[in-house]
Amino acid sequence: MCQLLGMNCNTPTDIVFSFEGFRRRAGLTDSHSDGFGIAFFEGKGVRVFRDDKPGASSPIADCVKQYHIKSLNVIAHIRKATQGEVNIENTHPFIREIWGENWVFAHNGNLNNLPDMSDSFCQPIGSTDSEAAFCYIAEQLKNRFRKKPTEEEIFDAVQQVTQELAKLGTFNFILSNGEWMIAHCSTNLHYLTRQAPFGKACRIDDDDVIDFSHYAAEGDKVSLISTFPLTKNECWHKMERGGFVFFKEGEKIREIIGVPGPAVDDGTLGKGGLKAA
Amino acid sequence: MCQLLGMNCNTPTDIVFSFEGFRRRAGLTDSHSDGFGIAFFEGKGVRVFRDDKPGASSPIADCVKQYHIKSLNVIAHIRKATQGEVNIENTHPFIREIWGENWVFAHNGNLNNLPDMSDSFCQPIGSTDSEAAFCYIAEQLKNRFRKKPTEEEIFDAVQQVTQELAKLGTFNFILSNGEWMIAHCSTNLHYLTRQAPFGKACRIDDDDVIDFSHYAAEGDKVSLISTFPLTKNECWHKMERGGFVFFKEGEKIREIIGVPGPAVDDGTLGKGGLKAA
Repeated sequence: MCQLLGMNCNTPTDIVFSFEGFRRRAGLTDSHSDGFGIAFFEGKGVRVFRDDKPGASSPIADCVKQYHIKSLNVIAHIRKATQGEVNIENTHPFIREIWGENWVFAHNGNLNNLPDMSDSFCQPIGSTDSEAAFCYIAEQLKNRFRKKPTEEEIFDAVQQVTQELAKLGTFNFILSNGEWMIAHCSTNLHYLTRQAPFGKACRIDDDDVIDFSHYAAEGDKVSLISTFPLTKNECWHKMERGGFVFFKEGEKIREIIGVPGPAVDDGTLGKGGLKAA
Repeated sequence: MCQLLGMNCNTPTDIVFSFEGFRRRAGLTDSHSDGFGIAFFEGKGVRVFRDDKPGASSPIADCVKQYHIKSLNVIAHIRKATQGEVNIENTHPFIREIWGENWVFAHNGNLNNLPDMSDSFCQPIGSTDSEAAFCYIAEQLKNRFRKKPTEEEIFDAVQQVTQELAKLGTFNFILSNGEWMIAHCSTNLHYLTRQAPFGKACRIDDDDVIDFSHYAAEGDKVSLISTFPLTKNECWHKMERGGFVFFKEGEKIREIIGVPGPAVDDGTLGKGGLKAA
């Protein structure tokens, strides 16, 4: 399995504090060491960095740290392979063009018996269930709407296709088109929104502390989504099974509450998870 | 306009010697300073690095230099914007999935009156003629062949669609699916193949010298394609207008000879070009 990290903001924000805690789980505080990837939206464009080496020690991840890219929407992923070899084509996040936009997708979970995509317009390149599921979503959306529909129609359609795929296994994912970010939870996904008054946060994975009041302006809003909480002194909301959260400009704008139930240990529960509990 | 660099090899090869000369043209020896991009195939996967800063001074390009990624197929581009703002979504190379493969495309030139793509399955994200032309190629190929056809059929189809688009302006491009590399020339494109016996090469842009005999093995074959020659003591073949060259495993496997004629100064002739003449 894997771990996910997403950020949606109303002002371009540097994700390095969160990413540095997150990527420690890729080889130091946890074992999600089968590659990492991070995608930064910049307007409609995307900068993406991937490596099949562990995120904790990858020189590409070091480069990301040094560069301090500011973005409104970021999706990162550290991989613990279930389906598909450890290589670049199987490294999340995956990217496809839908209605003239970059859509970026990262998945944690395991899906079986996905529909055959070999005749589709949108086909997977690697051998993961994750990329195949994303291609299925892309194909369904493009077939339903030849041109970009309203945001409500997109959210409804993503929800419907997701519910279909979620029957095939564990399907925690984060998806963004650079404007909004959607999170769906099958087993483990947490989120929070940082806004004024800003204070200090302490990372779970190495106790590093940041004081956001030194960096953020009065109106800033930053929502973070993560498989497990990244900080120990902030209130992370645990999503329920089948729940959706839709973020835009740093805020939750729509939510589908899932079904409460005991946390499922599907193999993603590592140190990060236990320490955050 | 812009400049292009492509490399196709039979063994994973480090492009840094060529890239370091090439990227000097993005702000030092020439003025292609409106962003750069470089894509490295690794199996069916692609690592891509882009920046809207000049390639000569970009920290992302410095990261590429440090990492010494070895690849069988690499495409790089330094931009001098004609159509489309200077931003990440307009930065080459562009990538699309075709028949379950990453296809990577970079263009030098200027095309006008491209077909409307707003109803297409494959739509451009940015506002360049280059990405629109690539999407047109992708759409045409996917519509002609639902599954991947033979290599000969692909080469024939790319040739036909290219000849259609080349009527709309200047269309120098490099295209690769990670197995082969296609180069098409409207005005300026040069290539060479390095193979045993390997010797020294001296870069045009800063006189740096490398002795490939220290790095290459007996059977290695490395073909390079560049808008203008990168080295001063090697024999670069200048392609003719309308010419195609198809490379695979480091070798030219098919060629369509174009129409000889005087070099056209379409704005791409900078110091690099003059010094190489």
